[in-house]
Amino acid sequence: MTEIIDGKAVAKKVNAVTAKAVDELKQRGVQPGIAVVIVGADPASQIYVRNKNRKAQALGMYSVVRELPASTTQAELLAVIAEYNADDRIHGILVQSPLPAQINEPLITMAIDPHKDVDGFHPTNVGKLLTNFPGNYPVANTPRGIMTMLAEYGVDPAGKTAVVIGRSTIVGKPMAALLTNANATVTIAHSRTQNLKALAKTADILVVATGIAHLITGADIKPGATVIDVGMDRDENGKLTGDVDFESARQVAGLITPVPGGVGPMTIATLMQTTVELAKWSDAE
Amino acid sequence: MTEIIDGKAVAKKVNAVTAKAVDELKQRGVQPGIAVVIVGADPASQIYVRNKNRKAQALGMYSVVRELPASTTQAELLAVIAEYNADDRIHGILVQSPLPAQINEPLITMAIDPHKDVDGFHPTNVGKLLTNFPGNYPVANTPRGIMTMLAEYGVDPAGKTAVVIGRSTIVGKPMAALLTNANATVTIAHSRTQNLKALAKTADILVVATGIAHLITGADIKPGATVIDVGMDRDENGKLTGDVDFESARQVAGLITPVPGGVGPMTIATLMQTTVELAKWSDAE
Repeated sequence: MTEIIDGKAVAKKVNAVTAKAVDELKQRGVQPGIAVVIVGADPASQIYVRNKNRKAQALGMYSVVRELPASTTQAELLAVIAEYNADDRIHGILVQSPLPAQINEPLITMAIDPHKDVDGFHPTNVGKLLTNFPGNYPVANTPRGIMTMLAEYGVDPAGKTAVVIGRSTIVGKPMAALLTNANATVTIAHSRTQNLKALAKTADILVVATGIAHLITGADIKPGATVIDVGMDRDENGKLTGDVDFESARQVAGLITPVPGGVGPMTIATLMQTTVELAKWSDAE
Repeated sequence: MTEIIDGKAVAKKVNAVTAKAVDELKQRGVQPGIAVVIVGADPASQIYVRNKNRKAQALGMYSVVRELPASTTQAELLAVIAEYNADDRIHGILVQSPLPAQINEPLITMAIDPHKDVDGFHPTNVGKLLTNFPGNYPVANTPRGIMTMLAEYGVDPAGKTAVVIGRSTIVGKPMAALLTNANATVTIAHSRTQNLKALAKTADILVVATGIAHLITGADIKPGATVIDVGMDRDENGKLTGDVDFESARQVAGLITPVPGGVGPMTIATLMQTTVELAKWSDAE
């Protein structure tokens, strides 16, 4: 019997812990703060930013949204980042993707203080994750949220075969690092991979993050596998759907995330969790 | 017919290019410089350090070896690193492993200026490698040397199945990142991997870095595969040998590195190559 992973329910649990941590920090005189910077008026980005802001405020955090025009220069954006790097009220800085063409995105990533890098995209934090470095550092929220869901549903990656389809900085690569650190045997597959579907079928844990709607169907899934769908795609009717064909996949998988209601709610809950941790770590310094 | 990869010959080619680059930099008034720090009197480490020093000098570089007693404190070692971080004659700093127990190795790794991190172990450089970051940064020399050998023997990883056995910061993880960036489909296997040998047999490119003598034999190799043996083990007679049983493996592999004479010479040649690049990049700043 396939069990559907309830991302909303797990996110609710995470948010309850976060709200409590915010209260505790406030009693010590620290209100966790997040600054979200958005450049230009991409409608999807605006919705994400609004949701993040609303959630941060609901959890009792200090939240700032800085909307910059699409014509913002590299130097102007760097100045905004420098301002938040120096602002003690801000513990997490997030620059919403995508950025306009005149902005050098890697330079922006490098400009954020690694201690305020709430997305976990700064090379220093990525490198710490890959090498399983001791100490505290932020980790990309989507893959980290997936690890939380796996733990919540009793899936221990140790000794398991994991296949991650997609090699982005945001999901695929940190996901593979987290699963390797948790003792899974991990393969990263991507657009150049041969026999992708046969490979997918070897996975005890299959994470699909390609942006290709319904790339993976039930026929590509090992019976009983845990299937995590990171896709946020639109089907032919404009309806939100995933990289996995849910209806056929749920016949085969042991555990599966739906879209929506799976990975999505976990990402924002984990973002809030990370912001509070950054505040806690900065307070402990 | 199996071809044996001649690491010494490839290293010689790399060294010839490095010597030329050293000359060119000297004409611009820059002599590439490397500082190797060794703590305690581990005999194997002393041999490595001596070889590095000799090779650097033979290539016309400025080379300093700092031998510190086994009783060196964390603070004393940090002070030595700070000294070389500030020394304009030094472009690459290498702290030889292993370090005594009183030294916090991750803190030492973090203390080296990423621009002088000739080993490529600083999280910032590791993170740049994992995310295939634009711009110049050092990469761990053993896996980078392996990529050079693959290129020299016409092995393009794109679209190929690669299995890396071992997940160290020094070899396995950067190796997997380099192969992924070169469009291979990479699996990192390790001590917790189930069915290791069956997995090894799926590899078009198999890199073995476990420290277990003769872990992999001909029976575990896909016919025609490229086999890279990173092992530096001792057999029952105390003779240097690899993680791969060379005699049985060479019957099956298409290309294979011997031990000694494969990966070893490439690592030191690549270390010299990286030192010169660090000098060049610092000069261009």
